[in-house]
Amino acid sequence: MIIIKQIKSMSRWAKTQKNKGRTIGFVPTMGYIHEGHLSLVRKAKKDCDRVVMSIFVNPIQFGPKEDFKRYPRDSKRDYRLAKSAGVDLIFYPSTKDMYPDNFLTYVSVTGLTNILCGRSRPDHFKGVTTVVTKLFNIIAPDIAYFGQKDAQQAIVIKKMAEDLNFPIKISVLPTVREGGGLAMSSRNTYLSASERYDALVINRALKSAKRLISSGELNAYMVISHIKKLIKQKKSVRIDYVEVVDMNSLKKINKISGGVLIVIAVFIGKTRLIDNITLKI
Amino acid sequence: MIIIKQIKSMSRWAKTQKNKGRTIGFVPTMGYIHEGHLSLVRKAKKDCDRVVMSIFVNPIQFGPKEDFKRYPRDSKRDYRLAKSAGVDLIFYPSTKDMYPDNFLTYVSVTGLTNILCGRSRPDHFKGVTTVVTKLFNIIAPDIAYFGQKDAQQAIVIKKMAEDLNFPIKISVLPTVREGGGLAMSSRNTYLSASERYDALVINRALKSAKRLISSGELNAYMVISHIKKLIKQKKSVRIDYVEVVDMNSLKKINKISGGVLIVIAVFIGKTRLIDNITLKI
Repeated sequence: MIIIKQIKSMSRWAKTQKNKGRTIGFVPTMGYIHEGHLSLVRKAKKDCDRVVMSIFVNPIQFGPKEDFKRYPRDSKRDYRLAKSAGVDLIFYPSTKDMYPDNFLTYVSVTGLTNILCGRSRPDHFKGVTTVVTKLFNIIAPDIAYFGQKDAQQAIVIKKMAEDLNFPIKISVLPTVREGGGLAMSSRNTYLSASERYDALVINRALKSAKRLISSGELNAYMVISHIKKLIKQKKSVRIDYVEVVDMNSLKKINKISGGVLIVIAVFIGKTRLIDNITLKI
Repeated sequence: MIIIKQIKSMSRWAKTQKNKGRTIGFVPTMGYIHEGHLSLVRKAKKDCDRVVMSIFVNPIQFGPKEDFKRYPRDSKRDYRLAKSAGVDLIFYPSTKDMYPDNFLTYVSVTGLTNILCGRSRPDHFKGVTTVVTKLFNIIAPDIAYFGQKDAQQAIVIKKMAEDLNFPIKISVLPTVREGGGLAMSSRNTYLSASERYDALVINRALKSAKRLISSGELNAYMVISHIKKLIKQKKSVRIDYVEVVDMNSLKKINKISGGVLIVIAVFIGKTRLIDNITLKI
């Protein structure tokens, strides 16, 4: 497995692969690799000739009071896990190279980014779309892989790639869960044992909502109330939002029909966790 | 010469050229081709295996009260001139394909775009950087060519390409002028005979400023006053701005030294004209 830290070397490698007619699958990450990331790598290996993983904790997608500094980092462990899943190359750039002094250019998707997570994290998605644009230009992948756990991110990136005509397919793969149903996230490492236990309520509430809808409840307000009631049973869990939205536009819906996304964001202690399920009615 | 109107066909053609190992030079235009555009084509022909010209009057770079609707258009004439200069392919997309309903993504360069032309045209450069990003992704050129006449645009696009890591060289070529010194522009067609005559004062003032600086005047304020005085002799010409700025940062300077740009924007009737010279002291 190759490790490249320089942007220029990365571009050159990608160009060489293209010239040899090889396709590149790309898995962007902020490191602290878990099974969710590795499931993307395995799919990329099936689809493409070469798999590139980037590891970069992107400062501009964190708010001033968020966890940029304490975000978990362990490059040795990440390398080992990436290699075991078959990653061909890790791109591990420095912040200084990605955002030199006098960096001035931003990519924003309007409309989709001021709702849900964007409400409590106002510049988050602008940071994501900017870094993903940079990585797309540096790595020039044929397919880029994202996890459904970050549902809004996946929709925002798909919209960006479409609007800006990136010649790149965006592939979104199912959320990978721990045994108890908790969605895999690098941030799970922040949780104490009891917090991790309480966090199971998120997925439990989503599954219960799904059953409620299957039994005929199509009123989004009733479904949201049901979820909130379940979550509130755990005193350590504070709700940021619970919404039922259209799967593509992310707009709130009243009557559940068509492609629907049920999205949850909560705080447990200082840790912010998100999860979601998709339904087709 | 090939003419392509569909985005997908354009991408496919570009990919085929890449696979054959050919380099692509790209000249983006809004049509109504003049010698300025053709000088870019000729340079592109020298540098690259294939030359693509885009013709697209980009609605999102015009303000609500600007000349989008009356901007001169003549595709037949453009095709003839492009062909004569050796363009291999014209990309002529529709507005509907470039900006479908629910288009949401924008690229902005902060700081460099709220000054000079950005002051009287607030969303202009955001429109330019967004469409250029789209065209870069569709055409995937090795080198893209821009005219020095639009000095601020050239600097903004260079900054964008650098910040977003586009694997594309930005080549900026000298302003081409009509006999009397007027900078070539598609908008010159708006001018009446007498307006066109009065417009010559712009370049005359720039040349006079250059002589003044050569003779030892390094106070930017004095140089600006000199230019304004000359321009004000023409009653039909209304000054938007006259500035002496740093060649890279576009920041105003007081004492002329290093790489300096003298920039002028005026209105003659309804027509907005810009021009500039660069100096190295």
